Amino acid sequence: MKNPLLVPELRELIKDNNTQSLKDFCESGHPAIIAELIAALSPDVAWQVLLHADRPIRSDIFSHMDIDFQTELVSFLLREDVASLMADMAPDDRADLFKRMPEERRESILPGMAYAEREDIRRLAAYEEGTAGSVMTSDYALLSLGMTAAQAIDRLRWEAPNKETIYYAYVVDNSRKLLGLVSLKDLILAPPSAMIDDIMYRDVLFVRIDDDQEDVVGKIRKYDLLALPVINGNDALVGIVTHDDALDIITQEYTEDMEKIMAIGGSHENAVYMKTPSWQHFKNRAGWVVMLAVLGLVSGFIVQKYEGILLQFTIMAAFMPMLADTGGNTGSQSSTLVVRALALEEITAKDILRVLFKELKVAILLGLMLGIIAFARVVLFGGGSTIPPGFNIGLIGVAIAIALSLQVITATLIGAVLPIIASSLKLDPAVVASPALTTIVDITGLLIYFQTAKMVLGI
Amino acid sequence: MKNPLLVPELRELIKDNNTQSLKDFCESGHPAIIAELIAALSPDVAWQVLLHADRPIRSDIFSHMDIDFQTELVSFLLREDVASLMADMAPDDRADLFKRMPEERRESILPGMAYAEREDIRRLAAYEEGTAGSVMTSDYALLSLGMTAAQAIDRLRWEAPNKETIYYAYVVDNSRKLLGLVSLKDLILAPPSAMIDDIMYRDVLFVRIDDDQEDVVGKIRKYDLLALPVINGNDALVGIVTHDDALDIITQEYTEDMEKIMAIGGSHENAVYMKTPSWQHFKNRAGWVVMLAVLGLVSGFIVQKYEGILLQFTIMAAFMPMLADTGGNTGSQSSTLVVRALALEEITAKDILRVLFKELKVAILLGLMLGIIAFARVVLFGGGSTIPPGFNIGLIGVAIAIALSLQVITATLIGAVLPIIASSLKLDPAVVASPALTTIVDITGLLIYFQTAKMVLGI
Repeated sequence: MKNPLLVPELRELIKDNNTQSLKDFCESGHPAIIAELIAALSPDVAWQVLLHADRPIRSDIFSHMDIDFQTELVSFLLREDVASLMADMAPDDRADLFKRMPEERRESILPGMAYAEREDIRRLAAYEEGTAGSVMTSDYALLSLGMTAAQAIDRLRWEAPNKETIYYAYVVDNSRKLLGLVSLKDLILAPPSAMIDDIMYRDVLFVRIDDDQEDVVGKIRKYDLLALPVINGNDALVGIVTHDDALDIITQEYTEDMEKIMAIGGSHENAVYMKTPSWQHFKNRAGWVVMLAVLGLVSGFIVQKYEGILLQFTIMAAFMPMLADTGGNTGSQSSTLVVRALALEEITAKDILRVLFKELKVAILLGLMLGIIAFARVVLFGGGSTIPPGFNIGLIGVAIAIALSLQVITATLIGAVLPIIASSLKLDPAVVASPALTTIVDITGLLIYFQTAKMVLGI
Repeated sequence: MKNPLLVPELRELIKDNNTQSLKDFCESGHPAIIAELIAALSPDVAWQVLLHADRPIRSDIFSHMDIDFQTELVSFLLREDVASLMADMAPDDRADLFKRMPEERRESILPGMAYAEREDIRRLAAYEEGTAGSVMTSDYALLSLGMTAAQAIDRLRWEAPNKETIYYAYVVDNSRKLLGLVSLKDLILAPPSAMIDDIMYRDVLFVRIDDDQEDVVGKIRKYDLLALPVINGNDALVGIVTHDDALDIITQEYTEDMEKIMAIGGSHENAVYMKTPSWQHFKNRAGWVVMLAVLGLVSGFIVQKYEGILLQFTIMAAFMPMLADTGGNTGSQSSTLVVRALALEEITAKDILRVLFKELKVAILLGLMLGIIAFARVVLFGGGSTIPPGFNIGLIGVAIAIALSLQVITATLIGAVLPIIASSLKLDPAVVASPALTTIVDITGLLIYFQTAKMVLGI
């Protein structure tokens, strides 16, 4: 686009009811860019602009707005306007919007739509979030056996305006059973009289409707696909997930994983940080933090139980923070590596022993090194603390060093094993990562610390 | 593929020199699947299998192997074999492989290749890792002004076998300046005699060769693109990044971010957990952990400095772990949210005050709630600890509650501000997240803890 209009200029055009200029504006760039510019307006003014665009362009721009803005915008439109807007949207996008509408609104809008669209929306909106069904679109191009390449290209030409992609077309039988895949490239390269039956690729990769959306992305990524078909329990083709959806899903999953790892609850949407009210941020974060703080009180009870040791050896209090942090850090490292290896399907739950053996080796090396550092620290700078008669600083150093080494080893192993257990229980490995892990290894660390001290120092 | 062959069967076929069966096997499924099956063999046996595939298929399967396996495999091939294998590979894939080869090997292979390929490899391998140039491919389809749609389709048909995609074709002038974009869909829909000049989309989105690969993915995702052109300093088209590369890049960035966040060094590759030797794992993890442990010693000095308070009020030792953990958790939460918001370009460094104001509100709510919990805990279960005469448990509870609230507020703000500072210094915001942050807020937390206790208890 050459001269992007600014918000005041847009307002001016609306005031003057400058129909042509508003229409030109809507067609002056990529719908995503126009959507971004319009979203700076209030929803009612945004609609005044959109109204001037031709219907397909209007829906295209609308589809590129974020779903909160969409939801707000449709909330004050006449139901006829909503119905016509949604009729032109991609099936997956409109199903997402539909799911966001209040119950009464949904029921009032559906009658204004054609039967096929209505059923399509109902069907797509019914799939559980996070499944292949919930992210697929029902606008895919179909071909039949017995067509020639030329006929197939004609068919695709005719269907193109209403399909998400015509670069992949699927060949199905009368019961929509998936028989093959033909790419537009294959059709262009084939002689016009070649039969679809001979051109099509028969071993088509697919996912089932209930498969996790992460598996969908995994397949699209691994096999460099433009789209992946989704089939139902009767092996009938019901939708496709396209490459651009895969990018959106992976970005979404990324945000979700990071937030789960850092013990943040809520809906885990992308790019809603500033928009989310502080009160909602508080609610999203308070749950886990409070749970962990309460769990952290266990550490307090352990310290209280061994209070006598601390009173005798105050130097041990000085090493408590380092013990806790180092355990948390090494545990987070192993858990992160294992969570990623699980997510990328490099390892599965049955590799648990191999993983533990590997982590044990790493942990022993880390433990030894950190133990030596702690010993040096105690012996070099421990002089400031009072040491009870009959004990020497070297022995205390040995006790702290051994405790830290054991802490590093157990924390690393716990960090590696928890995500594997979670994954074999079909839980998300991410939730047992960082903060939860830190709190757990704090507790085990303190027990190791005081028990080691008792044994080494003979108290 | 109907009957996947297993490793022993493959070995049998090689022993019998069963050329036809080995060839059939190589063509029996998606190259990515064949690559995965062959990768279970040792590189030399894998090559025995690959040899039987036709050249383009051989390179295709080879391209789908992971780069470590590729590097190992080519290390014992004759340089003629390497040159012919690389000649058929996609330019971006072969440039990646080239970069992995030892210096002498590179120099010995290049002379065996055609001049154009040699220059292409040299050029692509020269771009800095992480830039658009380093991930682009040079096999894109070009069209010229003055062609008709029918001529353009003929041209694409002719070029298809050697191009990464023919679904987008780029229109350039004599100096390769990018004039427009035509999709194969547009060409199919246009009348055969329509001119490219009229069909092409002129405001083509592009990136520059030095742009960050994350920006490339951001554009492909936002505008739902199949490919994004890359231009050099003279505005000449030099490559494209395709949708499948975008998925690979984002997956790679994800692994990298997570590992950086958890203070793991090294090369941050995908799916190499099991393959990486324990010694290398140790080296990747030891650096940060040791640095943080040494930094953690500062906490020890602080505790030593306030040893007197701990000796008087042993109950305060019991709350040290909870104080540290809660600070680490709340700081990790705010830093994660800010890191994601920065990555998704929802906020930039100039939003620092708005972010701080938002986080302050959230932090006050979290601080109040956690303070109340801590107070209740002290008053209800604090009886077990010895309290010096002249002090009551309620006052100690108030001191600990205030300290925890202040700790939560500072940790949250530090967590929010560090990634923003890092980003405005052009550092990766991820490195200041979790473990580094935990160690920092431990230190600030202990200072807050003891100072608050001194003031509230008047000691």
